[in-house]
This record gives sequence, C-alpha cells and structure tokens, in this order.
Amino acid sequence: MTDRLRVTYRVRAPADQIDARARGIALEQSVEMADSAITDPWVREHVVGRVEEITPESDHSYRVVIGLSALTVGDNRAQLLSMLFGNVSLQGDVDLVDADFPSAILDAFAGPNHGIAGLRRLTNAAVRPLTCSALKPQGASTAALSELCRQLAAAGIDIIKDDHGLADQITSPFDERVKACQHAVAGSGTGALYAPSIVGTPRQVARRLRVATDEGVRVVLIAPMVYGLPAFGELTEHHPDVAFLAHPAFAGTGRIAPALLLGTLFRLYGADAVIYPHFGGRFAYSPDECRTLADAARAPWHTIRPALPVPAGGMSVDRVGEIVDFYGPDVMLLISGDLLASPDVARQAERFVQAVHS
Amino acid sequence: MTDRLRVTYRVRAPADQIDARARGIALEQSVEMADSAITDPWVREHVVGRVEEITPESDHSYRVVIGLSALTVGDNRAQLLSMLFGNVSLQGDVDLVDADFPSAILDAFAGPNHGIAGLRRLTNAAVRPLTCSALKPQGASTAALSELCRQLAAAGIDIIKDDHGLADQITSPFDERVKACQHAVAGSGTGALYAPSIVGTPRQVARRLRVATDEGVRVVLIAPMVYGLPAFGELTEHHPDVAFLAHPAFAGTGRIAPALLLGTLFRLYGADAVIYPHFGGRFAYSPDECRTLADAARAPWHTIRPALPVPAGGMSVDRVGEIVDFYGPDVMLLISGDLLASPDVARQAERFVQAVHS
Repeated sequence: MTDRLRVTYRVRAPADQIDARARGIALEQSVEMADSAITDPWVREHVVGRVEEITPESDHSYRVVIGLSALTVGDNRAQLLSMLFGNVSLQGDVDLVDADFPSAILDAFAGPNHGIAGLRRLTNAAVRPLTCSALKPQGASTAALSELCRQLAAAGIDIIKDDHGLADQITSPFDERVKACQHAVAGSGTGALYAPSIVGTPRQVARRLRVATDEGVRVVLIAPMVYGLPAFGELTEHHPDVAFLAHPAFAGTGRIAPALLLGTLFRLYGADAVIYPHFGGRFAYSPDECRTLADAARAPWHTIRPALPVPAGGMSVDRVGEIVDFYGPDVMLLISGDLLASPDVARQAERFVQAVHS
Repeated sequence: MTDRLRVTYRVRAPADQIDARARGIALEQSVEMADSAITDPWVREHVVGRVEEITPESDHSYRVVIGLSALTVGDNRAQLLSMLFGNVSLQGDVDLVDADFPSAILDAFAGPNHGIAGLRRLTNAAVRPLTCSALKPQGASTAALSELCRQLAAAGIDIIKDDHGLADQITSPFDERVKACQHAVAGSGTGALYAPSIVGTPRQVARRLRVATDEGVRVVLIAPMVYGLPAFGELTEHHPDVAFLAHPAFAGTGRIAPALLLGTLFRLYGADAVIYPHFGGRFAYSPDECRTLADAARAPWHTIRPALPVPAGGMSVDRVGEIVDFYGPDVMLLISGDLLASPDVARQAERFVQAVHS
C-alpha cells in the first residue's frame, strides 16, 4: 500500500533523454504545465507528480514509476482514469503498465458486489470451476436463441450469456429475448442462469436492467469500455443484487496492459467476473499475460472482493483439462463456438460440463 | 453514403494470409463464430460481415474494408462502438482506421447541438478564429484560478476552460470554483465564456451540469473517452442549450485513428468543439493527421452539424499566424502554457488575442 497513486509506464526513449521524458510525464499527468511556470510552492510540493523510479527494461525502453497525490483523484471515479492515462495516452511512446492505489482512493470503490464467492452461491458451485457459454449469432431470432439457451441449460452450463453483440436488434428485441431465454433457463430445473447483454446509454441500460430483473435475471453482461468505466462503476454500485460479467469489447490491446485494465480496473469498478481472451485461441494474449490478468482479478486486495476470471475466445472442450490446470478451480470457462460448431450442440455442451466437473 | 456500415481496418499480415485474416475479422465483428457453424441462411445473407476491399499499403500491411449490416447497430449508440471495434480491438494486428456510416445509423445521432455556427453566436465571433485558454494548475485554490480567469477574460479570450484535471478536488471544489470563475467572466464585460470541467459518473455529471447552468454557464468541458461515449451522447442529447468541448484524455488507449475517434466519433456523439494535440507541440500527431482530424470535425456530413477543431498542446503565441494559415478561420486556438509561463500573463494573453484577431 502507498499513500500516493503510483503509476508505472513503459516509456520508449534514448538513454540520454529518459530522465527528462519521465519528468515530462510527471508534469503532464499532474499539472499539465512547465515546472518553471508553477508559482505556488504548495502545488509544487503536494500536487506535481514525482518521478519515483526509472528502471531500464531493454534498449530504449524503461519502466517509469510516477507518484501522484491522492488528492488529485479524491473520490472521483472518472478522474482516476485521467490521472492514470489522460494526456499521455496521446503520446505514442508511453504505455500504461501497472498502478498501485492508495487506500484513500480504493475506499471510494465498492468493487464487485458478489465476486467469486457470490457467483459460487448463485450457481450452487461450491468449489469446482464454473461453466459459461454464449448465445449466438447476431441476427438469429428469439426463438432460435431461446431454444439454444434451453439446450445449454439442460446440459448443465452454469451461466448462459448473450453474445455481447446481441443488443436490441429487430431480429431479437431485448424485452422479448429476455423473457424467452429467462423462461428457458428457469424451465430447465438445472439452476442455470441466463445473463442478457445490456447495451446502451445509461438511461437505456437502467431500463433494460429493470426489465431483466423483473423477469428474475440475476446476472447480466456488459462491456465496460463501450459503456464507460465511470458509468459502469455507478451501475454496479446502484444494483447490488445483480452480478455483472464484464466483456472486453472496445478495450484494445497494448497501450494499457490487459491485466491492469481487464483485471484490476474492471474489478475495481465492480465486475464480478471478467471475460478475456485465453491464449492459444483467436487472440494474441500470452500465457504470462493471462496468468497476470487472472491474478489481478482474484488476488486479495484491500477490501475489494475477488472477481472471477473468465478465459474465452476460441477455446475447445478438448482443452478443458489444460485450462483448469493452468488457472486452478477459481475460474469460469467460457466456450461457445466449439459447441455451436458441433453437429450435436447439446451433446457437446454435456461433454463440456462433464470435463469441467471431473 | 452507403447502406452498410463500412469499416476500414489496417491489418498486418503476410500476403498469403490476408484473405483469411480479413474474413476472420468480418466474422469476429459480426457473428463471432465460424462461418460453417451458421445454420440460418438469412443470417449468412444479411448479418455476416463482408470483406468489401483489401488494398495493400506496404509490405505486410493492408487496408481492409468490412461491410456490416446497419441492422446490427440499429439506433443503439453503444452497440455502434462494438460493431466498429469490439472483439478485434483485442487483436494486436488490427487498427481501426476509418468508417463510412449509413444514414440508417446516422439518423439515430443528433450530433452537435451548436456546432461551429452556434459557438460563433455564443462568442460573438462572426468570421474570425476563436481563442481559448485553460485554468491551471490542479491544486491551485479557487481564488488563484478565478483571478487567472479574470485576467484571461479581460484580455479578450473567447472561452476560458478548466484544465481537464480540475475535477472536484478539495483544493478547489466544483461548486465553489464554478461560482467564482463564472462571476469573473461575467464581470469582465468582454463576453468571455467560462467552461468548467465536468468530471464524474453520470449522476455526478448531471448534478454538476445543473449547478453550472444555474450559475449561467453555457459551455462545459468533458472528456468523452473517460466518461464513456454512449453516456456522452445521451448527455449532449438531453442538454441542447449547453455547448460541449470534448477533451481527448484517455483517448489514446486503443488503436483508433485520431481523425476517426476525435473528429468523426466525438462529433457524432455531440461534441461542439474537439480539442486535440496540434503537431509540433508535446504530442506526436503529424500535420497530415491534424488536417484529416480537422476535416472530419468540420466537413459537411449528413445532417450532423460541423464541430469546431481546437488544436492544442504546447503551442506558443508566436505560432498563431502559422496555425491559422494551416486551418483557416474555422478553428479555435487553445494556448495556455505559453501564457502562464510568461512573466506577464495578462499581457501575453492580450498578445494571443491580438495575433488571432489580426
């Protein structure tokens, strides 16, 4: 724990310029003006960012730790993002790698309402890994999607979520789909949960969340970077009974380390479970990035509940053993395409469930 | 105009893999599943993304145009972001470069409420370029910030905005600062406008906007990527009397071309003016990127009003002539550091105003 917000950047610069560059970042991310123009000694002492460490990583690449005063953030959940990666996000030689948060800032965040323990209670899965699958594709009718939902629920999948691309298209309007899919899972008798995709502006999302919870929905899917992290944080705070699965759409790669954005920040803003691309599928994360991300999501951290890591993205049922070995039991495996590509979806879903339970 | 959403990506791939890679992007950004697993011919015909063009740019780099059905977006302003750069934002070999929107999608957006013509009316500047400066630094007291505001207003600056880092810190609480700074500009008699920085969750932002407009504020500053674009779009829609200056903080996190994100999308979601780093300052945009961005902000486009380009970021008063020559009169120059670094801020602000007016 620290009393400053300590932010780690990767900075590409020649050796003879890194000191000045680090100082420039400290100024840009705090006062946004030249040191020499600051006339107030209190501001210089308490507000100007400090270069705390510069560590060479490789030729022309350094890890730079900048210390920022906690008072620059206060309890403002939007301002935190500006302090972490505001103006310097526009400077191509800087990546945001890591952050260490003072309790003064963390205290403003409730984090996940349910977290791993809460999701285990909701799904009646005390110790084993959880299973998740997605309803696809965009453009399918409500009848087709709810029939798929019924099959996946009957197979014993714990959480059946909408694809994040299922919004409120005319092919399957939100209200109609929620009613049909929630009816399908409730009728399965297996305890499966349906998680609809909540896509829209804050007013639209509030309305859809109400429609969903009125139908008995306990878990929803939302993409925090599409929706906006401050709005997501407010949503999770004001709906403590709902569990939130966070989808990584629009989250990008590279400029913000995936572990920090999808693990740490999504958890901080209230994600109970975080979906991300597992290595070896259609996406480029490395095993090391996946492990660091899962650790960021579920390691003990202040008063913030652990979030459940949900590796996804082109995984097959044949890989279940390997993936569970990699993450241990506190994980939810999200497999969809490999089920839907099977000539017998229901049977492949059962194989998925059996592989995870055994 | 197009009847599909046509999205242009830059894709890094070997020549013998680009066709398959483009097809993969078309699937990922629409149905998120293998072509072979799609059983519904209507979905294949109407919903699956199409590879419309593949154009080599350089070795192992291609411009790929994907056509997506307008019905996948509907009128949902959050869903648009997922369709433009949802899952493929997580694939490091793909950048989002450009997009061509069908009127079916554009009709869901009101765009800027005021735009260039409206900002000219608000500032009584019929044809000349506008001037803007920022109150800094974070950590300064309300007394210091409002005194600076008074000096800048007296010098004839058109819009005096908070630094985007001024949120609601204890050193200058929002309500106190708005009252003092709005009083300072109103007392100047020059017609200057004060634009406070609105930072927070949707409920906090709604409250602060009410406080500000109750004080007579007509223009506010907000960072749409911090706040979330769907929430920003809803905010501009529900506050037609307020002009919104969009700040680019947190906007460099993905791999989205600046002209598309800060020019086109910020305008589409309702920014009346868009701030961005001018070349030759502390940031790395090229002259070509700046010109393309300004064009995206202000060129005629469907029924969407033009937004005012606001080049910024380490510019000096000595460069005013060059910058106005570069952009022409439909521009607002944002210069702050060069004023504050001067031993006589008021005099340097007057020089800035005179240089722009002449």
